[in-house]
Amino acid sequence: MTKQNKTLEYFQPYVAVVPSNIAFLKYWGKSDEALQWPANDSLSMTLSDLHTKTKAQVSEIPEHQVRLNDQEVFREDKVGQKIFKHLDYLAEQLQTREKLIIESSNSFPTGCGIASSASGLGALTLAAVAAWTASPSLEVLASKGFSMDRLIQWARIGSGSACRSLYGGVVHWHRGSCEKEQTVNQAFDESHWPLMDSVVLFSDAEKSVGSTEAHRSAWTSPLFAPRLASLNSRRDAMLQAIEDKNMKFLGPLIEQETLEMHGVIMSATPSVHYFGAETGKFLAWLRERRTALDLDVYFTLDAGPNVHLIYENHLHERVMQLLQETVDSSRILSDHMGAGPVLTVEEV
Amino acid sequence: MTKQNKTLEYFQPYVAVVPSNIAFLKYWGKSDEALQWPANDSLSMTLSDLHTKTKAQVSEIPEHQVRLNDQEVFREDKVGQKIFKHLDYLAEQLQTREKLIIESSNSFPTGCGIASSASGLGALTLAAVAAWTASPSLEVLASKGFSMDRLIQWARIGSGSACRSLYGGVVHWHRGSCEKEQTVNQAFDESHWPLMDSVVLFSDAEKSVGSTEAHRSAWTSPLFAPRLASLNSRRDAMLQAIEDKNMKFLGPLIEQETLEMHGVIMSATPSVHYFGAETGKFLAWLRERRTALDLDVYFTLDAGPNVHLIYENHLHERVMQLLQETVDSSRILSDHMGAGPVLTVEEV
Repeated sequence: MTKQNKTLEYFQPYVAVVPSNIAFLKYWGKSDEALQWPANDSLSMTLSDLHTKTKAQVSEIPEHQVRLNDQEVFREDKVGQKIFKHLDYLAEQLQTREKLIIESSNSFPTGCGIASSASGLGALTLAAVAAWTASPSLEVLASKGFSMDRLIQWARIGSGSACRSLYGGVVHWHRGSCEKEQTVNQAFDESHWPLMDSVVLFSDAEKSVGSTEAHRSAWTSPLFAPRLASLNSRRDAMLQAIEDKNMKFLGPLIEQETLEMHGVIMSATPSVHYFGAETGKFLAWLRERRTALDLDVYFTLDAGPNVHLIYENHLHERVMQLLQETVDSSRILSDHMGAGPVLTVEEV
Repeated sequence: MTKQNKTLEYFQPYVAVVPSNIAFLKYWGKSDEALQWPANDSLSMTLSDLHTKTKAQVSEIPEHQVRLNDQEVFREDKVGQKIFKHLDYLAEQLQTREKLIIESSNSFPTGCGIASSASGLGALTLAAVAAWTASPSLEVLASKGFSMDRLIQWARIGSGSACRSLYGGVVHWHRGSCEKEQTVNQAFDESHWPLMDSVVLFSDAEKSVGSTEAHRSAWTSPLFAPRLASLNSRRDAMLQAIEDKNMKFLGPLIEQETLEMHGVIMSATPSVHYFGAETGKFLAWLRERRTALDLDVYFTLDAGPNVHLIYENHLHERVMQLLQETVDSSRILSDHMGAGPVLTVEEV
């Protein structure tokens, strides 16, 4: 982009809203860290209300200005490193030296233990590319050659799970056997099977090791190789269960998957315990209560202590009633399957 | 028993042969250590050739004489402690002060990594009670009031898993909800579904923590409570799969069960790794090869690095051919589902 074609449009703020996602089949462990090659396929449900909103605006300043949840972050900060590194990567892809003013905020309380890297890096990718290319919508981006496929590959360089947040509904990230095959697609759209995810927040005091480091250690667990060898059949079973809208089949698969992932994490070197006895007790309580009530609500956990409860929309009231037995309502964040990212432009 | 009724019979050697067993649904963790109360039901297959043969003979000596695999063991020895403690317990139940000469040997090489406590304590229980009561068969024992139910309760005090070796076929140890309900029964006899267990021996160099101590730590794993809450449905599914003789259904259940148990063990405090990368790699290899060959062979591991391969008898030759690809035949011990213990008397 030369100085000459810079119109007012170019300096407008471009706004991306990208939801978080919760994986049923987890992304854990990489085959190649430099190439960001996941060790296995993953499957997730894109959320709606739990999202990151990121505004990016080209400006004639010497360095990017980044504000995250109303706090300025710098290149040297721990959280800033990841953001600036990704901005550098995107700028290199677009061969631009223009700097951006970035404002990003999460719809969920900061530090509440919800992983924000999927929505955060997804929104950063969309907003930055939109600003640098003066593209006010996903359609315009595509017409300029920035197809969703391309944006997804860029987003996953920032954070693997971010690539799954760029579609709505149920999303399948294929590991593939060659680079061309490492693709992401929507397996089912958000209207296929309305599901909810209610997050029960537990203390994250035990999270002593960051997920990047823990990811790296996956191969040191003796459980990791046998786990990988079984994941393709679990993936196929999950896809079938979602196609059939069969929660009694899907539920046990997602619980088995999450306990196995945590088994790998805890048995790796270093051994990491993302959840402790309080969460463990809650999971046992849930299994017992749902059997007693014949209520199809199932759990999954990411690399943290919070429990995501997955169930069909029409059960929401009953699930909330059940949770009242043991959890304070201030510790629950409810969300549902959503339609994916939105890109707009803010008129100035 | 008074001096007067002591006939020659009383001083004969009574011989019990008790096979080992391999659990499909594992006994791991106790609700109460003093009462030897298992945290969950377990299900196992009784083996045949892998057994312990124990001879017990009343003798007018001041202390029991115990020989194990041709080595004398004493009350103070690590392995002797468990044996003498159990002899003291049995003597108390029978209110006898008579001493025994015990000779015990395993049909499998000592120190090869096969757990011998199930067959060992089972055979010790049967042989000692037979000698003290001059009972040359299980029928005579029962006629004297020492029913299998009673012997089983005594054997499980010596070693939990020993109680499952006192029946042949597929055996179900019920946790129960009161003491009367902590029973053991034969779920299917050995003719119902002829299965094999071929053990692949790996180095046990990593076994740094004994299984008694590791058992004790089960509750410290955050995975233990959610595991327990799901075991009854897994037990029911396994019993159904065995009734249906459906290996494609049973196999994944037993693999899931063993990886979950090891996940608990590895995530407990202290963290124990009973198997390492070599075994893990073998398990992944097995899963991949059996898919490629469509060969129904499944793995399970006890608290050690050795892999038990479970399959239907008619597949034995194909399984051995498969193993030749990666394992030296000297590291394989093959056995099949057996009929349970045998009690005889050796004429002197």
